[in-house]
Amino acid sequence: MSFKLTILGCNSAVPTKERHPTAQLLNANERFFLIDCGEGTQVRLKEYQLNFQRINHIFISHLHGDHYFGLIGLISSMHLLGRNKDLHIYAHQELKSIIDLQLSAANTELNYPLFFHPISETNEQVLYEDEKISISNVILSHTIKCSGFIFKEKKSKRKIINDIIERYNIPFDKYNGIKEGADWIADSGEIIKNIELTVESTPAHSYAFCTDTIYNEALIEKIKEFDLLYHEATFKKELADRANETGHSTTFEAATIAKKSAVKNLLIGHFSQRYKNLDELLIEAKGTFKNTHLAESGLVLDFDKLNK
Amino acid sequence: MSFKLTILGCNSAVPTKERHPTAQLLNANERFFLIDCGEGTQVRLKEYQLNFQRINHIFISHLHGDHYFGLIGLISSMHLLGRNKDLHIYAHQELKSIIDLQLSAANTELNYPLFFHPISETNEQVLYEDEKISISNVILSHTIKCSGFIFKEKKSKRKIINDIIERYNIPFDKYNGIKEGADWIADSGEIIKNIELTVESTPAHSYAFCTDTIYNEALIEKIKEFDLLYHEATFKKELADRANETGHSTTFEAATIAKKSAVKNLLIGHFSQRYKNLDELLIEAKGTFKNTHLAESGLVLDFDKLNK
Repeated sequence: MSFKLTILGCNSAVPTKERHPTAQLLNANERFFLIDCGEGTQVRLKEYQLNFQRINHIFISHLHGDHYFGLIGLISSMHLLGRNKDLHIYAHQELKSIIDLQLSAANTELNYPLFFHPISETNEQVLYEDEKISISNVILSHTIKCSGFIFKEKKSKRKIINDIIERYNIPFDKYNGIKEGADWIADSGEIIKNIELTVESTPAHSYAFCTDTIYNEALIEKIKEFDLLYHEATFKKELADRANETGHSTTFEAATIAKKSAVKNLLIGHFSQRYKNLDELLIEAKGTFKNTHLAESGLVLDFDKLNK
Repeated sequence: MSFKLTILGCNSAVPTKERHPTAQLLNANERFFLIDCGEGTQVRLKEYQLNFQRINHIFISHLHGDHYFGLIGLISSMHLLGRNKDLHIYAHQELKSIIDLQLSAANTELNYPLFFHPISETNEQVLYEDEKISISNVILSHTIKCSGFIFKEKKSKRKIINDIIERYNIPFDKYNGIKEGADWIADSGEIIKNIELTVESTPAHSYAFCTDTIYNEALIEKIKEFDLLYHEATFKKELADRANETGHSTTFEAATIAKKSAVKNLLIGHFSQRYKNLDELLIEAKGTFKNTHLAESGLVLDFDKLNK
């Protein structure tokens, strides 16, 4: 299954022309999940030619503005551009009143159904699940209640080898059984083992989005061996005290979590605007965890091309 | 007195990468007034190297998102970047709850005083006044309550001619009287008429900001002979019915108001995203009112260089 993450913004706190506030789009086999929605996210989506009407689920980590001030604009534009299908928002309860108040002040009744799913402050739960993916919250430690998100693709059934169907004249209603491991009895009476009929599908992908948070070892077990961990790295190592005071992490701390959880790749972001050259942060993180990537607006990570 | 208007955004409804939602900055002799604040306004201000901490007064016409969704982000950035001086917001009452709710959700107590001044829905009043300028609301007809803003510079006192003070040895405490029209008795006893001591100052400037609104002749008397009228022109003439239904105006209607009020210049904006080539709108408006300008992001209008 194709699994791709596009970075729409990576800056902390204050937006600049070049570095936008947090937002990411996860495309899991043409299901589009938006994660956080800083100011200007709808413009970034247009810039990268990502049709925002295809997004049906939006996850907001917490109610600091750099993670959601673009949401009401996106909701409004979806409405103005004629959306009529459902939109689901997963966020802390307070966001619902903020959205409702703004729609009410504009005398706007959305022409599509908006479903609000409050995230628990104390429990980690499955927020969304279908036959292909499950998405849960993970509790982070920040200055206000804050949630990470865990995206776990489900293991796909085996794939039938291309010319097998024709060779053995297998009817359509048997495909599913074979994908699930059944053997096949050929017209000759010969039993064809499943291993000769099918191949393994692409492996299930996994992604953890963790921002904003202090260094928190409670995360480690929950993201063990994930394909990709996005972990905030607001500051360089030298500002560890400042990071801790403000509820954030350093490059070194992000890389340490990556190392201890044995994830395959680390993506760092949420950079303080004090850093003009982000390579310094990348180098610092790579010192502890080699497979580190830098979140920059416009970056697309294809999970099938990441380090395994 | 220098009087300059910078256009930060001119689009209606939905922002695009090139055309931003409504926001303007009026610099009246180094007093900075922000008028409307669509999403992304803080980034535009940075882009045009306009220091947003110098803005002390913000006027919001109405609570459709394309006129204010950038405000909470601007307020937050002012806070995060260490502002401590007062900020005044003039808007309809509902905006206060929206701001309060968002600050409360972020557990943010601003480190500067924020004063909210509700605009009356039924009365036109002076909202702000000092020795140089007076700013009032004007009631517009839109789909929700909506206010225009009128900026009237006060007539300056006469200016004392450069070498007069030295020539007649005039003491400091007499300057003001002379600026207000007093004559001067020279040491020789000769009476020097004020006309020989002073010259006329630059004329007082006037600006009317009128968006969103249907064609409304009630405006005409209130903006008579103004230097500049900003009037929305969401649609071309052929869509007059659509304009009226949606509470907007056409190029022709904006130009007709300009003509009937004998303003010296018209600035049209708030363009529907359906128009890719804005020159078509300019040509249409100029057909009725010659001194028409097109509001485009980054445009700076110096009132001393406008048509008189």
